[in-house]
Amino acid sequence: MERNLLLTIEYDGTDFSGWQRQPGRPTVQGTLESALSAVCGKEIRIDGTSRTDAGVHAYRQRATLKGEFGIPTERLALAVNHRLAGGMRGKMAAGPIRVTDVCEKPMNFHARFDAKGKTYIYKIRNSENMDVFQRNYCYQIPRPLDLPAMKLAAEQITGTHDFQCFQASGGTERETTVRTIYKLELRQAGSDIQIWVTGDGFLYNMVRIITGTLVEVGMGKIPPTAVASIIESEDRQNAGHTAPPQGLYLGEIYYELQEVPGYDE
Amino acid sequence: MERNLLLTIEYDGTDFSGWQRQPGRPTVQGTLESALSAVCGKEIRIDGTSRTDAGVHAYRQRATLKGEFGIPTERLALAVNHRLAGGMRGKMAAGPIRVTDVCEKPMNFHARFDAKGKTYIYKIRNSENMDVFQRNYCYQIPRPLDLPAMKLAAEQITGTHDFQCFQASGGTERETTVRTIYKLELRQAGSDIQIWVTGDGFLYNMVRIITGTLVEVGMGKIPPTAVASIIESEDRQNAGHTAPPQGLYLGEIYYELQEVPGYDE
Repeated sequence: MERNLLLTIEYDGTDFSGWQRQPGRPTVQGTLESALSAVCGKEIRIDGTSRTDAGVHAYRQRATLKGEFGIPTERLALAVNHRLAGGMRGKMAAGPIRVTDVCEKPMNFHARFDAKGKTYIYKIRNSENMDVFQRNYCYQIPRPLDLPAMKLAAEQITGTHDFQCFQASGGTERETTVRTIYKLELRQAGSDIQIWVTGDGFLYNMVRIITGTLVEVGMGKIPPTAVASIIESEDRQNAGHTAPPQGLYLGEIYYELQEVPGYDE
Repeated sequence: MERNLLLTIEYDGTDFSGWQRQPGRPTVQGTLESALSAVCGKEIRIDGTSRTDAGVHAYRQRATLKGEFGIPTERLALAVNHRLAGGMRGKMAAGPIRVTDVCEKPMNFHARFDAKGKTYIYKIRNSENMDVFQRNYCYQIPRPLDLPAMKLAAEQITGTHDFQCFQASGGTERETTVRTIYKLELRQAGSDIQIWVTGDGFLYNMVRIITGTLVEVGMGKIPPTAVASIIESEDRQNAGHTAPPQGLYLGEIYYELQEVPGYDE
């Protein structure tokens, strides 16, 4: 009998050319499909929710997997993780990709089309002291950032807007560039600043451009009160730079609107 | 005029075949020498204190560098780090190797021969929950470890002993296998256990075999009181397994005995 499985996936994006399968390149989707195919004994294809870029990480990416499988749901993650760990390096306990959950869904459920919202986390290390162990996991900014100014700017981004100014060229063509940001929080702990952004969907490089814009506000290059007019301008040139990929983490995908942080608040 | 410079070096050993230069393989020494040679405009060779293995990290490795250099001491680290960061990946702020300090020493000073002691740190993650972001930076042990038993075992390792039982084959031939462990501490924070071990010198794989032995004590496979007799047996077969490289960090090198933790205590 055919089944439709929803996978939850954690990965370190450092050594991958992004999520999406590409011939001759190490990708998260490609690596995961190979492991699933080996475990299931047949060619497996999955549908991911978010096409993360090269170097971008995920705590809870999702993907659906349709087909007839002999293997019980609860055994699938174990078998795939074992394979993903063993193939990579000698004595590692985990590979760079790990399936953290598998659950069965109705046949008409789709990981991407049924998503009601997503949370991304962007990690900034605001310190002069470099750290080689953090280099692939955050955006290092030596100059002190003005957090209250960044928070003021973040308030103007929250809500429903045409976010064309925060869209990079080169992504999938979209019908509309209107999106809703339900919640945009800045959290600070010591020299770490995290940007938690939840929305109904995101344009190409949107979180990284929002981050670059907030960083430029924090540096005093963009006045915090100017962000509303940057959005109104619908012009990418007016927004800040695109923050580098290694600070970005896909945090969560929501399939129920009432679970989306900031929805209805 | 010829100078003798002492470098302090931090590195993420994940992508290197260890410290020591080897033809055709990425090593820390080789990569650092290339960067130094490019910056100084001539072939540079350095002498490191510790030949860390593939996958092993360092917070404060040391190396000496002799020669005549036009570049001022205080500019050298900056120029080399810039080179090490830029060559690796697009927008990274740091490369996997970073020179954190450069100071001038008398001509007869040698990074290795003048070392009076070293501290290594071994990081264990004692949790069932795997974490892809930690896989190259610790030793994951899902089964709960008995920390008091491990501490009892650690006490028997401290002091001056013939540590042949903790030596792997394949290292440099040594005149004697007698070493002094000045201090061996176990520190716990949540699911993280760190082993801090300071000694006058270490045999090949010694810290990793001490760790493997302590882990087996923590698992109940080796009685904590048996460790003294394992040392007395001078037989590698009686000690525990060699813990994997990715949990090991070279923590500090001391050039003055009175700076060595545990010396004279």
